[in-house]
Amino acid sequence: MNLNAIDRYAKSLIKEAGHKIRVSFFNTIDIDSKADANDLVTNIDKEIERFVVDRVKQDFPEHKIVSEEGFGDKITSLDGTVWFLDPIDGTMNFIHQRRNFAISLGIYVDGVGMLGYIYDVMGDDLYHAAKGEGAYFNDERLPQLEITPLEEALIGINASWVAPNTKVDNDKIIQLVTRCRGTRSYGSAAIELAYVSSGRIDAYISMRLAPWDIAGGIVIAQEVGAVATSLQGEAPHLLGTDTFIVTRPGLHEEILSKYIRLK
Amino acid sequence: MNLNAIDRYAKSLIKEAGHKIRVSFFNTIDIDSKADANDLVTNIDKEIERFVVDRVKQDFPEHKIVSEEGFGDKITSLDGTVWFLDPIDGTMNFIHQRRNFAISLGIYVDGVGMLGYIYDVMGDDLYHAAKGEGAYFNDERLPQLEITPLEEALIGINASWVAPNTKVDNDKIIQLVTRCRGTRSYGSAAIELAYVSSGRIDAYISMRLAPWDIAGGIVIAQEVGAVATSLQGEAPHLLGTDTFIVTRPGLHEEILSKYIRLK
Repeated sequence: MNLNAIDRYAKSLIKEAGHKIRVSFFNTIDIDSKADANDLVTNIDKEIERFVVDRVKQDFPEHKIVSEEGFGDKITSLDGTVWFLDPIDGTMNFIHQRRNFAISLGIYVDGVGMLGYIYDVMGDDLYHAAKGEGAYFNDERLPQLEITPLEEALIGINASWVAPNTKVDNDKIIQLVTRCRGTRSYGSAAIELAYVSSGRIDAYISMRLAPWDIAGGIVIAQEVGAVATSLQGEAPHLLGTDTFIVTRPGLHEEILSKYIRLK
Repeated sequence: MNLNAIDRYAKSLIKEAGHKIRVSFFNTIDIDSKADANDLVTNIDKEIERFVVDRVKQDFPEHKIVSEEGFGDKITSLDGTVWFLDPIDGTMNFIHQRRNFAISLGIYVDGVGMLGYIYDVMGDDLYHAAKGEGAYFNDERLPQLEITPLEEALIGINASWVAPNTKVDNDKIIQLVTRCRGTRSYGSAAIELAYVSSGRIDAYISMRLAPWDIAGGIVIAQEVGAVATSLQGEAPHLLGTDTFIVTRPGLHEEILSKYIRLK
């Protein structure tokens, strides 16, 4: 398989999908004021997903594609080449803000992440990586992440996990957010993964993410030395939803051992 | 006083200051790797503030200017024309991310906000307003904000206020973040005020802000019908630090009465 050719193909496809999304904001201004905002996002989500899925199925008929709205394949194993696509990661931002959402794509071969893409559509910022060949922010190579102590770390975590919840002991999370330098929450797992990979935040934690939310970002994160696992410390499994953490080197074990107690 | 002329002057000055900040990222790449990151930000913060203060003092000698690093004036009343400047709002983002920070400027006459500016420097996005003449995002007029129920609201609040803290009863904040549609935290009061004004989030709450953090944003927010007060419901006072809330119409009273209990 020629991964370089697939890489060029995927980049081109993502940029075209992003252009369609940006254009949709002009085309749907009338619809926007009449219809429910959730309809709008569903339609565009589906339209973009269908566009990408159709292209991939046509040009790579032997590949599988797993995607949020269900136009792709149902898979029960990671054998072969699998594309994981979220056409619009950060749905609520898409509706409310018309920015701060991303196209997320990961291409895996026999369960190993080979190519990863996070495209911040409105910022026109592409984060991408190929396994063993480094990660890039647009055309700039991202440096290896250095160790940061927790006291100097900015952590991406939503305030809802600091409140009592069914997933994790929030007393420990309170200790974490009190001890670190600060917290952020951007509302898109893909963008937060891209931010960890580019050193803009130092960790990102979520209690429930799907494979298409994280598959692309994991490839990018691993190329710069970040550590990505479930909150049980296992390799992210890509056949169902799970908890998730990605951090710079040095933070992962400390956060998991001292501040995460799953219910 | 010719406010239109001051408006043109202020916009030009802000854009020039933003350009200086962007250029500083190139000039200080060497210094960046040797020196402490906090030194870098302090130097640029001070350099930009000094640049703006010197210009304003030269061209408007009768005006006062109040600014974060202290190159401006100490004021004890709001009489006359007062400029409130934060050269880099979102200092931690500036250091860690090199994006998601803003120049914030408000120009008040006898305590009344006449002109307001929030300039997202790396996004090159200017939010601005003149009292009675509407608010703008770049060249686009921002529409009046409509009422949104709390259940559909995105609220800007940092996770640290959901944890036990000395300022506010966090049990009530937990109820708030659980009841609303979602929360975000961007790490810049000015940007969160700009986001409320442009409808991207529906409220923003902070327990401690200085006049230069909010003075510009308040002018913009008020032009689109947002409500900005202290958490005691009083008009934001611009002679010292205070709590702060800004919301779309409809949310302000509900949040203050049901979810805020100051210590």
